[in-house]
Amino acid sequence: MSLSRSEVGIVGAGPTGALLAIFLQRLGMKVEIYERRSDPRKELSASGRSINLALADRGIHALARAGVIGDIIPAMLPLRGRLIHAPDGATSLQPYGQRPNEVIHAISRLRLNQTLLDVAVRRHGVQVHFEHPLEDADFTGAVAHIRDLRQNRVLGVPMHPLLLCDGAASPMRRLMSSRGLIDARETELDHGYKELTIPAGVDGRHRIAKDALHIWPRGNHMLIALPNEDGSFTATLFLPQRGAVSFQSLADANAIERFLSSSFPDVRALMPNCVAEFQNHPTGFLGTVYASPWHYRGMAGLVGDSAHAIVPFHGQGMNCCFEDCVEFAECVRRHSSWDALFAEFGTRRKPQTDAIAAMALENYLEMRERVADPCFQLQQALALELEKRHPQRFIPRYSMVMFHHEIPYLLAQQRGSIQTQLLAGLTAGAATLADVDFARAESEIKSRLAPIMQEQLSDRA
Amino acid sequence: MSLSRSEVGIVGAGPTGALLAIFLQRLGMKVEIYERRSDPRKELSASGRSINLALADRGIHALARAGVIGDIIPAMLPLRGRLIHAPDGATSLQPYGQRPNEVIHAISRLRLNQTLLDVAVRRHGVQVHFEHPLEDADFTGAVAHIRDLRQNRVLGVPMHPLLLCDGAASPMRRLMSSRGLIDARETELDHGYKELTIPAGVDGRHRIAKDALHIWPRGNHMLIALPNEDGSFTATLFLPQRGAVSFQSLADANAIERFLSSSFPDVRALMPNCVAEFQNHPTGFLGTVYASPWHYRGMAGLVGDSAHAIVPFHGQGMNCCFEDCVEFAECVRRHSSWDALFAEFGTRRKPQTDAIAAMALENYLEMRERVADPCFQLQQALALELEKRHPQRFIPRYSMVMFHHEIPYLLAQQRGSIQTQLLAGLTAGAATLADVDFARAESEIKSRLAPIMQEQLSDRA
Repeated sequence: MSLSRSEVGIVGAGPTGALLAIFLQRLGMKVEIYERRSDPRKELSASGRSINLALADRGIHALARAGVIGDIIPAMLPLRGRLIHAPDGATSLQPYGQRPNEVIHAISRLRLNQTLLDVAVRRHGVQVHFEHPLEDADFTGAVAHIRDLRQNRVLGVPMHPLLLCDGAASPMRRLMSSRGLIDARETELDHGYKELTIPAGVDGRHRIAKDALHIWPRGNHMLIALPNEDGSFTATLFLPQRGAVSFQSLADANAIERFLSSSFPDVRALMPNCVAEFQNHPTGFLGTVYASPWHYRGMAGLVGDSAHAIVPFHGQGMNCCFEDCVEFAECVRRHSSWDALFAEFGTRRKPQTDAIAAMALENYLEMRERVADPCFQLQQALALELEKRHPQRFIPRYSMVMFHHEIPYLLAQQRGSIQTQLLAGLTAGAATLADVDFARAESEIKSRLAPIMQEQLSDRA
Repeated sequence: MSLSRSEVGIVGAGPTGALLAIFLQRLGMKVEIYERRSDPRKELSASGRSINLALADRGIHALARAGVIGDIIPAMLPLRGRLIHAPDGATSLQPYGQRPNEVIHAISRLRLNQTLLDVAVRRHGVQVHFEHPLEDADFTGAVAHIRDLRQNRVLGVPMHPLLLCDGAASPMRRLMSSRGLIDARETELDHGYKELTIPAGVDGRHRIAKDALHIWPRGNHMLIALPNEDGSFTATLFLPQRGAVSFQSLADANAIERFLSSSFPDVRALMPNCVAEFQNHPTGFLGTVYASPWHYRGMAGLVGDSAHAIVPFHGQGMNCCFEDCVEFAECVRRHSSWDALFAEFGTRRKPQTDAIAAMALENYLEMRERVADPCFQLQQALALELEKRHPQRFIPRYSMVMFHHEIPYLLAQQRGSIQTQLLAGLTAGAATLADVDFARAESEIKSRLAPIMQEQLSDRA
């Protein structure tokens, strides 16, 4: 019996839940979503903080597969590279790639969520129940208890199955873990984050370049900024939670003012409200979620951040979740039982999400420190030059992750670690590209990189 | 035997030929393209005129299906509506739709072509032979004669088969028609066109709104302008070929200056070189191509403009050609002989391309005259209001064509003609929306529109 006529419940109407609902409804299923919050389509985009996300090739590919990319494109703001702000105010652009199509995009999380829900409901007939938080689950009777806040009653929703797209803090994952049905752990970084605002200029325009991701790298902390459609930027400060310079130590307005003015003098002038925002906005935690397995029998399956939330430093969180949806839909075609489907989804997907989780953690050091290092900059320039000379064999790791959805995360990680060794060896003692031995580069690429590509790619075929 | 291991020749490396090659190579075929021009990837975008095209939902959907939309997005400039310039210089924006995702996009034909070729060659291994014009064909021996201009020799290319993506003036269609293998006719409009330039401002920025398609409607002629990435606009003047005010009558610089200054005084000031451009740029012809059938046995098949070129007034030419590629790839999956595949492709596709050909012709009158008519404007406003009230049942025809790839052109045309009657009836004697009888509107929508939707959509299922 095929699963394609199933009735499926999804917990969570965020971007992942909405996109997964579209995929499943297109496969013939009848999907109902339960969401604890109220309908985001009724929110004004002006209200509250504006969170923006990075959308790259993997996310775009998933949206295209779901037939919704045309609806999302108008909300995308292209970013051509990292614009690095040195402490003395000097700026330099590090392009993400070397072709005009190698860009990433900033997108408003709210607008993306609104559009995906609109398409799910209006075009595909998905049913969404807002203000319906999950409270508990009975795994013997295969029934989830979901509260209808409007009527103040508890519904028994059969888990045949229930898909959990309820985010990094997934109540269901914690429930399953606490009852010993799965193993799960949440590892927290000792750095946190805080959102600040760079308002639009008086003419409504962006006050710094709007086609770049701005970074103020300062060693053990950094500020980044992504453009919004309304001319403003959402800036995010990443800082240790505790220690000499930390969220804990910056306890009053004077200390905050001194810190921001000395670390980021150029952008401080563009953030008139940053001290008050620092005091009033919550400090966010950064963490990685690991779980195994991602399901309990054919009843409950984790998809997206609930299964594998990662830190934001590679801009891949949402992209990785959207790739989950593509893989999940592929698995639907191959299985006739939910238990088997969940098992295969986890087996195929977890090595990949483990790889991006590790690369995202590594990227924090790169963003806050290495981008400002001349040695790193030479290696980056060499990587782009090697890609130019050997386009089939050498693609910088960042490009593999961001611009090549056809290269799995794990393969990008494996090739990347060999490439890092090659780049370090080739630039040892070199001051400029002219000092690099390109004949040696070519022979090492052939002997060390080519085999892993062939092997891994034929594994997938 | 499946066709998926076939070796296929394509004539024409324009956007349609390149996209079709990507689809077929992805299906497992081995594709070689023959193109009479030199490699467009070696052209500087600054050289020559910049032609820009309108990309809408159907084109986006096709690019998404081919896995290349991520490469194209950075070249897209969103247009939110028509900005109408009245003779007195007053402007008004007519939004294309009522949702933020209902936009169309301007895109440089050159950059689009370069990107599609780059993906075809680099990612999929398509072979392209530039400077290889088709000269003749031997339909008895099933061999096409293609000249290699670099070596100055003629190659015999087996037609097993040859796909003709060689545009509106397709040499192969004319050959097939002149030998009586197919019926084909080219009907020419009595209006022509001429491209002019609105350069960027001194600050490199666009001098008029860059997120709109600009129209100066003047009854029997009009000027339109689409933005380019470099801050300039490509403007196109549409004018009768002969008559009192026509390309023929505007024979010297004084007459041209008088005409442009009196018809378009506001934009004349922004086009310093328009008189010289008028004299030096060629006058383009506008026409529609009809052919039947679109193939000769399993040897030669027309795809895109070669089969059904249309006038540009609906901004659907490229979108329609890209939709051809999707349909063609679908047909590949269903057939084991090229003759049968070509026959089904034509049977399925021609009613659709006939419909958009007719709608594109109708749209010329709308753009050059009706957009300025208060009665038309009221009907447009009513159409949007009815869509708001009955989103599943009433979608303005323009929106069906531009934003709903899932609604076939023919169905859009059929529903559109009923809607036109409804709108005319409901606005007869009305001055504003407040005068419209919405209860009557609802009952007529139910009785007249609902049946055709059900019927047609179930036909497709």
